[in-house]
Amino acid sequence: MDPTITAFQHSPDRGRGLARDMRVRWALEETGQAYDVRLLSFAEMKQPAHLALNPFGQIPTYEEGDLTLFESGAIILHLAQRHPGLLPAQADARARAISWMFAALNTMEPPIVEFGMAKLFERDKPWFEQRQPMLEDRVRTRLGQLSARLGDADWLDGAFSAGDLLMVTVLRRLDGHGMLEEHPNLVAYVARGEGRPAYQRAFAAQLAVFAAGAT
Amino acid sequence: MDPTITAFQHSPDRGRGLARDMRVRWALEETGQAYDVRLLSFAEMKQPAHLALNPFGQIPTYEEGDLTLFESGAIILHLAQRHPGLLPAQADARARAISWMFAALNTMEPPIVEFGMAKLFERDKPWFEQRQPMLEDRVRTRLGQLSARLGDADWLDGAFSAGDLLMVTVLRRLDGHGMLEEHPNLVAYVARGEGRPAYQRAFAAQLAVFAAGAT
Repeated sequence: MDPTITAFQHSPDRGRGLARDMRVRWALEETGQAYDVRLLSFAEMKQPAHLALNPFGQIPTYEEGDLTLFESGAIILHLAQRHPGLLPAQADARARAISWMFAALNTMEPPIVEFGMAKLFERDKPWFEQRQPMLEDRVRTRLGQLSARLGDADWLDGAFSAGDLLMVTVLRRLDGHGMLEEHPNLVAYVARGEGRPAYQRAFAAQLAVFAAGAT
Repeated sequence: MDPTITAFQHSPDRGRGLARDMRVRWALEETGQAYDVRLLSFAEMKQPAHLALNPFGQIPTYEEGDLTLFESGAIILHLAQRHPGLLPAQADARARAISWMFAALNTMEPPIVEFGMAKLFERDKPWFEQRQPMLEDRVRTRLGQLSARLGDADWLDGAFSAGDLLMVTVLRRLDGHGMLEEHPNLVAYVARGEGRPAYQRAFAAQLAVFAAGAT
C-alpha cells in the first residue's frame, strides 16, 4: 500500500510550491515512490484527528502502514534511508549530507521564515520599515556564507542529496525578494534543483491541487 | 582517537549551558563517548580555518578522523546511529524519535529563538513592548501543543531519546521567562532531563570552561 501524506486543501501560496508538502513530494519522486495525498482544510488541521498525527497541527504528515511521521525533515530522512537516490552510500558522505539537511532547516530557514513572517503579519505596523534592514541582514549573512561554500559546485557536497533538496526548498521562500539574486551561484543552484524531473513532477502535483481548488 | 568538538571560549550565557555545544556534550555522555574540546573565540569562529569546518562560522563542530560534521542536530543523529542510548532499536520507533529531533529544531526552536533574539537585540527599541505579545503567543502556542502531547508521560515517545535530549535543551532557552511554568508537565520534563547523570556531567564540563575563563 502506498504511503499517504497530508497537504493544504487551499495552500496560502496559491500553487507556488512553498508549502512543506512540496519537499516531501519531491523526495518521494526522487526515490520513485508512489503516494496518496489527503487534503486538509485549516480547520481540520487543528482537529483531534490530525493532532493525533502531528501534535503541532501542521502539514505534511506521512503514514505508511502502522508508522506515522511528522516534520518534513524527518519524513525525507526516513525516505532517504530506505530508498536510494537521496543520500550517498558511503558512511561519512552520508553523515555530511545529513549535516546539510539540518543546516537547511535549523540555520538557513529560521531567518528566512522570520523575514517572511514580518512581511506577512507586520507590514502595516509603524516599525515594519525600521526592522527590515536587521531582518535582511540576518538573511544576507547566511546567503553569503552559503554562496561562499557552494562556490562553483553543482551541489553542496558531491552528488545531489536530501541536503540539497531541503536547501533548495528553503531558498525558494526568498522568491521575489531580491536577496537571492545577489548570489548568481545560488540562483543557478535553485534553478538546478527546480530543473530536476522529480522536482517538476512534484511541483505539477501540488499545482494541480491549487488549480482544482481555484475552479 | 577521541572525537573533537568546538565550543565557545567565552560563552555568552555565562555557563548556563544554553550554547549548542551542551547538546552535543550531553549526547556524547549518554552514549559513553570520551571527547576533546577545542575552544574558539568569536574572532576565530569567523576565520577561514573554522569556516572550513562550518561554513556558517558557528559552534559546535565535530571532528572524528577524516569526518567533519556541523549542526548540533546532525552531530547528535550521527552519535545516536552509531552508539546505543539515544534511539530505539525498532525501526518505526527510531523514525518517530527522529521526528521529535526535527520537531525540536524546526518547530519549537525557531519561535523560542525569535523571542530570545528580540529580548537581546530590540529591548531598547520603541516597538519592543508592542511586539512582545505576538512573540509570546507564538511560543505559547507551541508549548501548549507540546504539553498536550506529552501529557503524563516521562518522555515524548517511549524511552528517553535524542528527540527528548534536543527538546529539553530547546525548552531550557525559556529559563527565566515564565512561559514554561504555565505547563507543569513541561517543567517536570525539563527537570527529568536535567536530572540524568549524563546531563549533569555535560553541564559540569561546559560550566568548567566558563569558570576557567572567568578567573
